[in-house]
Amino acid sequence: MKEHVRPLPSYLVERYQGWQATTYTENRAWYRRLADEGQRPRAMVISCCDSRVHVTKIFGADQGEFFIHRNIANLVPPYNPDGDHHGTSAAIEYAVRNLKVAHLILLGHSNCGGVAGCCALCEGNAPDLETPDSFVGTWLNLLRPGYERVKDIPEAQRQQALEEEAVKISLENLMTFPFVREALDDDRMTLHGLRIDIGEGKLYEYDPKENSFAAI
Amino acid sequence: MKEHVRPLPSYLVERYQGWQATTYTENRAWYRRLADEGQRPRAMVISCCDSRVHVTKIFGADQGEFFIHRNIANLVPPYNPDGDHHGTSAAIEYAVRNLKVAHLILLGHSNCGGVAGCCALCEGNAPDLETPDSFVGTWLNLLRPGYERVKDIPEAQRQQALEEEAVKISLENLMTFPFVREALDDDRMTLHGLRIDIGEGKLYEYDPKENSFAAI
Amino acid sequence: MKEHVRPLPSYLVERYQGWQATTYTENRAWYRRLADEGQRPRAMVISCCDSRVHVTKIFGADQGEFFIHRNIANLVPPYNPDGDHHGTSAAIEYAVRNLKVAHLILLGHSNCGGVAGCCALCEGNAPDLETPDSFVGTWLNLLRPGYERVKDIPEAQRQQALEEEAVKISLENLMTFPFVREALDDDRMTLHGLRIDIGEGKLYEYDPKENSFAAI
Amino acid sequence: MKEHVRPLPSYLVERYQGWQATTYTENRAWYRRLADEGQRPRAMVISCCDSRVHVTKIFGADQGEFFIHRNIANLVPPYNPDGDHHGTSAAIEYAVRNLKVAHLILLGHSNCGGVAGCCALCEGNAPDLETPDSFVGTWLNLLRPGYERVKDIPEAQRQQALEEEAVKISLENLMTFPFVREALDDDRMTLHGLRIDIGEGKLYEYDPKENSFAAI
Repeated sequence: MKEHVRPLPSYLVERYQGWQATTYTENRAWYRRLADEGQRPRAMVISCCDSRVHVTKIFGADQGEFFIHRNIANLVPPYNPDGDHHGTSAAIEYAVRNLKVAHLILLGHSNCGGVAGCCALCEGNAPDLETPDSFVGTWLNLLRPGYERVKDIPEAQRQQALEEEAVKISLENLMTFPFVREALDDDRMTLHGLRIDIGEGKLYEYDPKENSFAAI
Repeated sequence: MKEHVRPLPSYLVERYQGWQATTYTENRAWYRRLADEGQRPRAMVISCCDSRVHVTKIFGADQGEFFIHRNIANLVPPYNPDGDHHGTSAAIEYAVRNLKVAHLILLGHSNCGGVAGCCALCEGNAPDLETPDSFVGTWLNLLRPGYERVKDIPEAQRQQALEEEAVKISLENLMTFPFVREALDDDRMTLHGLRIDIGEGKLYEYDPKENSFAAI
Repeated sequence: MKEHVRPLPSYLVERYQGWQATTYTENRAWYRRLADEGQRPRAMVISCCDSRVHVTKIFGADQGEFFIHRNIANLVPPYNPDGDHHGTSAAIEYAVRNLKVAHLILLGHSNCGGVAGCCALCEGNAPDLETPDSFVGTWLNLLRPGYERVKDIPEAQRQQALEEEAVKISLENLMTFPFVREALDDDRMTLHGLRIDIGEGKLYEYDPKENSFAAI
Repeated sequence: MKEHVRPLPSYLVERYQGWQATTYTENRAWYRRLADEGQRPRAMVISCCDSRVHVTKIFGADQGEFFIHRNIANLVPPYNPDGDHHGTSAAIEYAVRNLKVAHLILLGHSNCGGVAGCCALCEGNAPDLETPDSFVGTWLNLLRPGYERVKDIPEAQRQQALEEEAVKISLENLMTFPFVREALDDDRMTLHGLRIDIGEGKLYEYDPKENSFAAI
C-alpha cells in the first residue's frame, strides 16, 4: 500500500492550518476538556455518506454534540448477532450502551443515489448491483421490504416514498435491538425520523400518528 | 416503534430554521444544482463516529466536497464478498466505482474510545466486549492484528500506537479490494492516512517511507 | 512576433516541474476528472489584475472552485450588445448562462492603481489617460459616475471611497444584463461585494442595508 | 441590486479567517510593503477564466509576482483605439507602460470551453453564439482567423490546434500595440506562449522556430 500513500493535497493542508489558527485556538480549552474527559454527545445521528448531507451545519452542531454514523442510504440492519462485523450495529451499541445518548435521529435525504440504486435493483434494472460481489447491492437489499411497500406508487413519487421508507424501516429495525428497546422503554432515549430535501433546504419529520412525513 | 418516535427537540428545530434562513438561503442556487446535477465529491473520508472529530470543519469543506463514511474507530474490514451486509465496504465501493473520488482519506484520532476498547479486549479486561452478542467487540476484532504489533510498546504510548495502527491496517485492508487496487494502479485515486490529536488540534500524517506518523 | 518569443525563464520552468512532481502528481486523478468531465465552479469572482490580489489563496480555493475574471479595477461595464468585443461581458455571460454559477463575487482592493488613475483622471491630473488612444483612460471612464459620488469626500478618504464605488457600480451595472437579472430573480444566483485591504489583510463586505462596507 | 446582495457564504468566511490567521500573519511585513510601496510584478500573465487553470499554483507564485488578466479563451484583440472600453487592451497597456513588466506570458489550456465554442460557431453549430447579443459569440470571433488555419485538421486534433492558435493569434495581435512593440524592440520585455494540458499537468511552449508547441 505504501507506494499509493501520498501527502495530503496542499489546499487541504492550508485550510487545516487556517482552522488550527482560528477555530481551534479560540476553542482550545473546550477541545482539551473533550480530550481529557471524553465525549458526552446528546444525540446519535445516522445519516447518508452523501457529500450533500451536512448534518452538523444544518443543526449548528459543534465538536462534542453529535455522535454520527454515516453509511449508504442511512440504513439500519435488523439485529443479528451472528459474530460477523456489523459496523452500523456496533455504532448503535456504542452510542446507546456506552455514551447513553438521549436521542437517536435517523436522517434521510432527497436525491439519494443509494435509494435510486435500490429502486433500480428491485425493478431489475441494475445488473451490476445483483452480482454477488457487489457490496452496494447486498447492502441495499436491506431496503427491499421498503420497496415492496412503495412499488405501486406512481414512478414520479416513488423515489421520495422509498427515501421515507429508508428512515421508517431503519426505525423499525432499531426496535429489534434489545438494548435500544430497553433504553426506549426506560425513557432514557427517544427516536426521531427526518428527511432533508437538499435542493429546497427543507426538513421533513416522520409523524407516527399520521404515518407520514410533514415539513417542520 | 411509533410510541417512541418524538418530535425533534425544539433547540434543534430552531437551529435548523436559523440555518434555513441564512446559510441555505444564501447558497440556495448551489444546493439546487447539487440536487439536480448530483454530487461530485473530490474525496472520500473515513473517520470515526466520535462527536469530537469534525472533519468538514477542520478542512473548511462545504456541502458537496467530501463523501464521508463514519464508523467506530474508522476501520476498514478486509475484502470479503460473502453476501452479508457490509456497510463500510458498500460505502467504499460506491465512492470508488460510482463517484470516482480522487482521494481516499483515512482519518484516525486521539482519545478514541473504540481503540481503548480494543486494547482492553485484547488484554482480557473487557468481558462485555467478549460476549458473542457484542457488536462493538466483534467490530473491534478487526483491529486485533494491530494490537499484536503494538503490545510490547509501553502502556503510556500504546493507545496512540494503536490509533495509528487503526489507520495503517485500514489502508492495508483497502488494498484487498480489487476495485480500490485497480483505481490506485490506474492512478485514478491516491491514499492518505491521518490522525488528529483532539486536545492539541494537531494533524499527523502517515509517512510510508518512515512507516510512522509526523505532524503536518 | 517570432523574434520576440523566448523560452520561459528557467526559474519558472523549475517551479512548474516542482508543481508537476508534487501537487499535480498528488491530485492527478482529480485534474483528469476535471479535464474529462468539465468544470463545475460554484462561484465567479471578478477581481483586479493587481499582483497583490490573490483570491484563491485568501479563500483556500483549489482548481475547479472559482471561475475568475480579472481586469483593471475589477469593473463591470453596463450591458451594451453593440457587436463589439466585450471581454468582461463575455466572461459574465459564460459564467451565468453556461456554467450557472451560484455566486457572483465582486472583489475590490486597497491601493488600487486603477482607482488612483481614475481619481487623477477626473481631477484633471492625468493627461496621459485623457489621450484618445489610452485604453486605461477609456476603461477607467467606467468609474466616472463613482467619482461623482465621492468627489466631496476629503482627499485622505477619497481613494478608499472610490474603491468601494468600483464594487458598487459594478454590482449596479451587473443588474443591466438581462441574463444576470433573470438568474437573480429566479434565485439561481446571489451577488456579493467585497474589498480587501492588502496591507492589513482584512476583508470588508458591502452591506446593502447600510449602503456601506463593514469588516467581516 | 440591493435585494440580491447577500453575505458571503460562511465556508468562505471561515477559510478567509484561516488565511488571515496564518498566511497573512506570517507575511504581514511583505504585504504591508506591497501596500505602501506598490506592486512591482515581474511578469504579466494572460490566461483563461476557467476554474481549472491555476496559474499562481503552477508557477509557485505568491502575492506580488504576477499581474494577471483572465478572460474567455485567453484572447488578445488587435490594437483598436476607437474610444470604446477595451478591458484586455487596458490591462496590457497598464502592465507594459506603468508596471513595465519584463515578461508577457500567454497561457492557453486544454479542454477550453471557449475554444470549443469557437469551433462550433465557425462550423455553424452554435446558433446561440451567432445572435448579435451574445457577448461570448462576439468575443470568440477574435479567434475566427485561427479557425481558418486549422479547419482542415482532422476533428480529433482540431480543438487542440485551435487552443494553440488562441495563443499564437494573441501573440500576433500583441505586436499591433505600439507600446508592446516598442518595449519588445527596446529589449525591455519578452513574449512567451504556453498551453497547459489540464488532465496531464503538462506545459507546452510555443517554439517560434518550429512554429509549434513542444513539452517543456
